[in-house]
Amino acid sequence: MDLKDLENIEHKIEEREDFSGFKVSPIEVFFPKDEEEVERIVKFAYENSIPIVPWGSGSSLTGAVSCEGCIVIDLSKMNKILEINDVDWYVRVQPGVKLIDLYEAVEAKGLFFPPDPASFFLCTVGGATSEGSGGMRGVKYGPFREWVLALKVVMPNGNIVKLGEPLRKNRAGYDLIHLLVGSEGTLGIITEIWLRLIPLPKKKIFLVISYPESIKKAGEAIIELRKAKILPEFSEYLDADVVKSMNKNLNAQLKETDGGMLMISIEDDQLQDVISIVKEKGEYKVLEGEEAERIYSLRAQAAIAVKTENSGYFYAEDIVVPVSKLPEAIERLNELGKKYGTKFYIISHIGDGNLHPNILGKNKDEVEKLFKEVAKISIDLGGSVSGEHGIGVQKAEMMRVQLFKSNGPLVLDLMMGIKRLFDPKDIMNPGKYVERAYLAGTTAASFKDSSP
Amino acid sequence: MDLKDLENIEHKIEEREDFSGFKVSPIEVFFPKDEEEVERIVKFAYENSIPIVPWGSGSSLTGAVSCEGCIVIDLSKMNKILEINDVDWYVRVQPGVKLIDLYEAVEAKGLFFPPDPASFFLCTVGGATSEGSGGMRGVKYGPFREWVLALKVVMPNGNIVKLGEPLRKNRAGYDLIHLLVGSEGTLGIITEIWLRLIPLPKKKIFLVISYPESIKKAGEAIIELRKAKILPEFSEYLDADVVKSMNKNLNAQLKETDGGMLMISIEDDQLQDVISIVKEKGEYKVLEGEEAERIYSLRAQAAIAVKTENSGYFYAEDIVVPVSKLPEAIERLNELGKKYGTKFYIISHIGDGNLHPNILGKNKDEVEKLFKEVAKISIDLGGSVSGEHGIGVQKAEMMRVQLFKSNGPLVLDLMMGIKRLFDPKDIMNPGKYVERAYLAGTTAASFKDSSP
Ligand SMILES: Cc1cc2nc3c(=O)[nH]c(=O)nc-3n(C[C@H](O)[C@H](O)[C@H](O)COP(=O)(O)OP(=O)(O)OC[C@H]3O[C@@H](n4cnc5c(N)ncnc54)[C@H](O)[C@@H]3O)c2cc1C
Ligand SMILES: Cc1cc2nc3c(=O)[nH]c(=O)nc-3n(C[C@H](O)[C@H](O)[C@H](O)COP(=O)(O)OP(=O)(O)OC[C@H]3O[C@@H](n4cnc5c(N)ncnc54)[C@H](O)[C@@H]3O)c2cc1C
Repeated sequence: MDLKDLENIEHKIEEREDFSGFKVSPIEVFFPKDEEEVERIVKFAYENSIPIVPWGSGSSLTGAVSCEGCIVIDLSKMNKILEINDVDWYVRVQPGVKLIDLYEAVEAKGLFFPPDPASFFLCTVGGATSEGSGGMRGVKYGPFREWVLALKVVMPNGNIVKLGEPLRKNRAGYDLIHLLVGSEGTLGIITEIWLRLIPLPKKKIFLVISYPESIKKAGEAIIELRKAKILPEFSEYLDADVVKSMNKNLNAQLKETDGGMLMISIEDDQLQDVISIVKEKGEYKVLEGEEAERIYSLRAQAAIAVKTENSGYFYAEDIVVPVSKLPEAIERLNELGKKYGTKFYIISHIGDGNLHPNILGKNKDEVEKLFKEVAKISIDLGGSVSGEHGIGVQKAEMMRVQLFKSNGPLVLDLMMGIKRLFDPKDIMNPGKYVERAYLAGTTAASFKDSSP
Repeated sequence: MDLKDLENIEHKIEEREDFSGFKVSPIEVFFPKDEEEVERIVKFAYENSIPIVPWGSGSSLTGAVSCEGCIVIDLSKMNKILEINDVDWYVRVQPGVKLIDLYEAVEAKGLFFPPDPASFFLCTVGGATSEGSGGMRGVKYGPFREWVLALKVVMPNGNIVKLGEPLRKNRAGYDLIHLLVGSEGTLGIITEIWLRLIPLPKKKIFLVISYPESIKKAGEAIIELRKAKILPEFSEYLDADVVKSMNKNLNAQLKETDGGMLMISIEDDQLQDVISIVKEKGEYKVLEGEEAERIYSLRAQAAIAVKTENSGYFYAEDIVVPVSKLPEAIERLNELGKKYGTKFYIISHIGDGNLHPNILGKNKDEVEKLFKEVAKISIDLGGSVSGEHGIGVQKAEMMRVQLFKSNGPLVLDLMMGIKRLFDPKDIMNPGKYVERAYLAGTTAASFKDSSP
């Protein structure tokens, strides 16, 4: 079998880059129209030991789709919504369905799929599942992981398996579904996805916009909300520079203040409780209906505005810390900014301690050094180097540091064992994620050297 | 190192049996008081290749703790609640904590842990985590799986790892946490557990008791609730014989009818919607407060009443089918009952399609044959042989049939690969779960023979 046998599958040769500017130079990009075509491509690659990179919409912020000399399998043509079941409350889709199209289809049936990465208007269900994406409503409803019921997967050897059933309760064997969720295309190619749905909420929701004196005050407000046992629909934060950038690049018409903008979406029965907390932090206002929707859409585009600020490097940091450690994390970010003479553009799913202190810069070494120092803050505080964007090539080293320090030396070995079990030839999105650390020859001793 | 070196750890030799009557004949039962003692026992067993069975409270219904010649590690002395964090909303416990004690402790801080297997008054957090247990509120809040944030585990070689962090969002590597949840003690011994909490609900809740003409009508009511997008707190069903048994053995004072009893717990804003559906199925009444609590507690003891009916075999079936297939599943159970001249005692988390058609009998072969036929119904209807009780030794064969038929021959190989990766010496609760199938020499060909 050679590449010619795949000629009747739509294909072309093109260079690409992901949203963070990581380069992709494939020998071929295929656009399979169904599972059978995926199977054929993978079998070919397996026989010939050619690396494969699955591609959703390339909105990855971590170099998770970067490659040289690989075959890219672009799943954008497999974009059918196969079934919406209004009794068993699930939707079954092909991986190339855009998240925004899924929302529309299920809402038309009175159902709701909560996870909403801010990239929902462009990313695919397959990409978001493979990233275990989070989003704005994650604080209330959790990330993708909590919503995936079952998967169909073309394994690295071309065999097809189904993992799980579209059942919320199913105890038949080890949970392989959640190994695939967040596996960043390193264990197989997802060709079908069953997602859990719930009824579309009917309760009235308000959006409280608060202008705290500083991001630290915003963090304190979040802690107070937690102590008061208030669980918002979402609670997001944009710092002063991000707001400015959005006004400039998106004509957002947001109010500019020194302390940025905190957005808390809440049901009416807890509105007064939220107000009583944020009013201590600075000015606030309450929105509803279309005006609230407008802010939600704008929030989703914040990263796009920030990226426009700079023609150099754009590093989207994605640390998460325990909510109780938010003030400390913010303090340390401030110190770091002073030390490097840099400003971070902080976008944050602040309600669950997930901070995106984005870094812009011209000097790659400098940006990377800062990037690692930020990651180190999360590790020190018992958090994680990634809350939702994943690892890709960008965070493989800092993930290794985290796992060694917080979880024990055996954990990375187990992860590598899983990679080898699924993909013994190492052809699925190789050189990313845990495998990167493996290639770098991780041992308990080498950990010390790589610690920044 | 020999057994004597472990003498200063509390221990004794005793025969045991689990709740379903599976026998346990250990060479020693240890009661470690802390992780370090667990580590020492496991290291000893590893060096000497002695099988280990972790024991919570033995409420397993599937022979998940059965053994001969093993070391039992009874975790009941590791029963401390280590931390309740009211900002980060988690509780950290040792595995031997009783679930009922955890409820009380977190509720005192205004927090709530929803999963509630009906055995909550006796089972341990470690056991329920290892079983990935479900329960009554599962229909709204999901099973244990969705609530476990992080774990500490003594691996089969005695090394200690931590999996995950007490963070709902964490993308540092493959999800090993959810491999351990539901692993039935086959991958390691869980010594610490971080569980996610939410605010204690304040909304008023009613309990609608409905007496449908038949269980089939109860199933139809559930489908109508789904179509109407109503999500109850719980929705449980007890058949006529179970109700009778509870009156006899627990002095429950429940109303006896031909069609059994459907219980739907619902917030006030959807109470009228529920009533409008159940009133078409038969008589009903609405309870609240203490009377509703009494029914909830009684429901939890239903299996205990049924077990008392018989001195022979008690097989707790635990199939799950898609909710849309409930009427068909019930129809087929009725036919089966007629064919075998048996009555099932059906207890059901009916709201998520999880049926427990319990089988009592004196003739082991007959009971086992029936048991397999029931499991086959779930497989035929795209369901699962276990919704929440797990596999143990009891369902290993039917799980294999399910995985081959519904998921593909490779899936069991992957599961066995995971078992070997974690436990190469096969000492952790061996002969159970997926490993049983492995020992039986599973191949695509042998599948056909084992299909009932
Ligand atoms: C403006 C912007 C905002 C963002 N906001 C968020 C946010 O709020 N929360 C969040 O979590 N992320 C966010 N992201 C990151 C990113 O969008 C998400 O991770 C997204 O879900 C990726 O989807 P994609 O379709 O673009 O996947 P890609 O970037 O194409 O791929 C992502 C990974 O999945 C793999 N993959 C893709 N499809 C498959 C498949 N079918 N089978 C197996 N592997 C596959 C790829 O190989 C790669 O490793 C944002 C990105 C941008 C650009
Ligand atoms: C009356 C009754 C009602 C029930 N109702 C339900 C229900 O509604 N929903 C439901 O899901 N289940 C139910 N069950 C089944 C059973 O109670 C649950 O599975 C329970 O959670 C098991 O807890 P346990 O502490 O008794 O564990 P055990 O039975 O002692 O052990 C269960 C499994 O976990 C392993 N294990 C125990 N502790 C550890 C540890 N620390 N580390 C690693 N492995 C460990 C054991 O080896 C075994 O494989 C019920 C049982 C009874 C008797």
